[in-house]
Amino acid sequence: MKKVGNGTYMLENPVAILNTASIVGPKEKQGPLNKYFDKCLDDEFWGEETWEKAESKFVKETVNLAINKSGIASKDFDFCFAGDLINQCISSSFGLRELNIPFFGVFGACSTFVESNILGAMSIDGGFATNVVCASSSHFCSAEKQFRFPLELGNQRAPASQWTVTASGASILSNNGNGPFITALTPGKIVDMGIKDANNMGAAMAGAALDTLITHLNDTGRNPSYYDAIFTGDLGHIGKDILIDLSKTKGFNIKSNYDDCGVLIFNKEKQDTHSGGSGCGCIASVFSGYIYQKILDKELNKVLLIATGALMNATSSQQGESIPGIAHAISIEVKK
Amino acid sequence: MKKVGNGTYMLENPVAILNTASIVGPKEKQGPLNKYFDKCLDDEFWGEETWEKAESKFVKETVNLAINKSGIASKDFDFCFAGDLINQCISSSFGLRELNIPFFGVFGACSTFVESNILGAMSIDGGFATNVVCASSSHFCSAEKQFRFPLELGNQRAPASQWTVTASGASILSNNGNGPFITALTPGKIVDMGIKDANNMGAAMAGAALDTLITHLNDTGRNPSYYDAIFTGDLGHIGKDILIDLSKTKGFNIKSNYDDCGVLIFNKEKQDTHSGGSGCGCIASVFSGYIYQKILDKELNKVLLIATGALMNATSSQQGESIPGIAHAISIEVKK
Repeated sequence: MKKVGNGTYMLENPVAILNTASIVGPKEKQGPLNKYFDKCLDDEFWGEETWEKAESKFVKETVNLAINKSGIASKDFDFCFAGDLINQCISSSFGLRELNIPFFGVFGACSTFVESNILGAMSIDGGFATNVVCASSSHFCSAEKQFRFPLELGNQRAPASQWTVTASGASILSNNGNGPFITALTPGKIVDMGIKDANNMGAAMAGAALDTLITHLNDTGRNPSYYDAIFTGDLGHIGKDILIDLSKTKGFNIKSNYDDCGVLIFNKEKQDTHSGGSGCGCIASVFSGYIYQKILDKELNKVLLIATGALMNATSSQQGESIPGIAHAISIEVKK
Repeated sequence: MKKVGNGTYMLENPVAILNTASIVGPKEKQGPLNKYFDKCLDDEFWGEETWEKAESKFVKETVNLAINKSGIASKDFDFCFAGDLINQCISSSFGLRELNIPFFGVFGACSTFVESNILGAMSIDGGFATNVVCASSSHFCSAEKQFRFPLELGNQRAPASQWTVTASGASILSNNGNGPFITALTPGKIVDMGIKDANNMGAAMAGAALDTLITHLNDTGRNPSYYDAIFTGDLGHIGKDILIDLSKTKGFNIKSNYDDCGVLIFNKEKQDTHSGGSGCGCIASVFSGYIYQKILDKELNKVLLIATGALMNATSSQQGESIPGIAHAISIEVKK
């Protein structure tokens, strides 16, 4: 590993992403990426009594599927890194309580998936682990209930709001394997742009995405065109446009090869999600389903994946606080 | 680094704990450890409008104090690892939003402090970082409001309940320095003993503490007597007794050199906290204040620090769920 610039880590023995798994809910099944997910459910409860228990089942089944696909025995995993949006991250801890693998709970709001993958890659490159599993999840119903209003109220949603994705995604990282590889890590700093509108997360997180993107490009000396594709998750339609504009002010044009997982997962015209998808499960499932397949198919050989999180809660918004954001980035390449 | 047994990592180039910092509230000021803390406040609000903002101030001031004490410039810190009990860990993210150091949010409930130190030590041993800061916090008032009842109700507390400590603790880890050193890491697995009483956290977490303690002893081939002291945090009085009993069933007698941070921080007779202290800030402040000073004074040369967390939330208890526990352990020794 070699640190370059202010805070990017080039993995000289890159960490392989052996495989991924993704399970999504009914609205995601109706979206344009449905063929890329391992499983699309018709029932948001998945046979459980509550949304919280359903979300835990998403995590459990997705992680088990990822482990089964890898062919590696559960006992040969050194660590699990996981987190979610529900208070005290119970989707992960209840979903994974029978996993019997040393567990690190991680919270980075919607940046959790990449934060987990960064910590997982560091544990492998640092010699602590051979195999790790990284996961995150979100559920529209449990998130709405907790962050906004009970669904039964039938509240109108603000035009700038995003739709929390019901999904879980998981990746298996290993120091063995033929790739694709995680080749660089750029962990992010907390950036608070002073946005106070909890219905406009994309705007609140765009500054953090910019900070991490520019740090990564400056540290590596790369242009955006080095990558076949740059993905954020989840700025949505509004945040995506802001990031494109902000990048221009820093001298980088990302318009031609950049997209956002929250934009990709739903059909803007037909699905009425306003500014697109969000939630820890959005980038997790879009990466684990769609992007990973495109990399396997060699349609994308070099990808920069930037996960963004809004580090607020319902109380902080009620108390008039602004919304701090964070963004973590990893480079994924077919070749070492 | 050398992995021994099932899951203990011996750091052959041990990570130095350069210094620590701790700030506590008024009830902790009245407790027996008050002289060991850097600052004891008389006002739980610390001049802020809300308990949540006060807790963020605890984190901010404690981390800044730890950094200042270290003499290391803020820009020379590679990472910050931090977390807390408040929904979506806002105490940490709001408290540290001006820190300008790459940030990893961590959630392990009351195990967060040691989880942060494990991840920090791994990032240093793995060559990613030179200096990191690790922190966690809790606040009695914000925690009661969130997990139980509004304080204004004046509810009776159950006899087995613990008193959330108002405090923050922080440690500065470095690959330079004369110690004391983190010499071994034993990350824990989630263990669910089926306890459903959210007013008896000690019982719920004792099984996880046992699992990590026994794993550590078996992995290293050590007896409890290898350590001058073994500390858990925070099983409280009830959980402490359970751990002593459970350890006996596994063939280990820890009675003579074991104590719990939740037991130590309050005076059982005079302070009426029932089963003792708890919260992410308890082990963080007791370690950063009391235990670290005892190590500097050479009164304790070898310490095993086991932080325990109850991975539930208010909703999971209302839904009749049991309480999964986790415990993470680090060895701290004066000599490498």
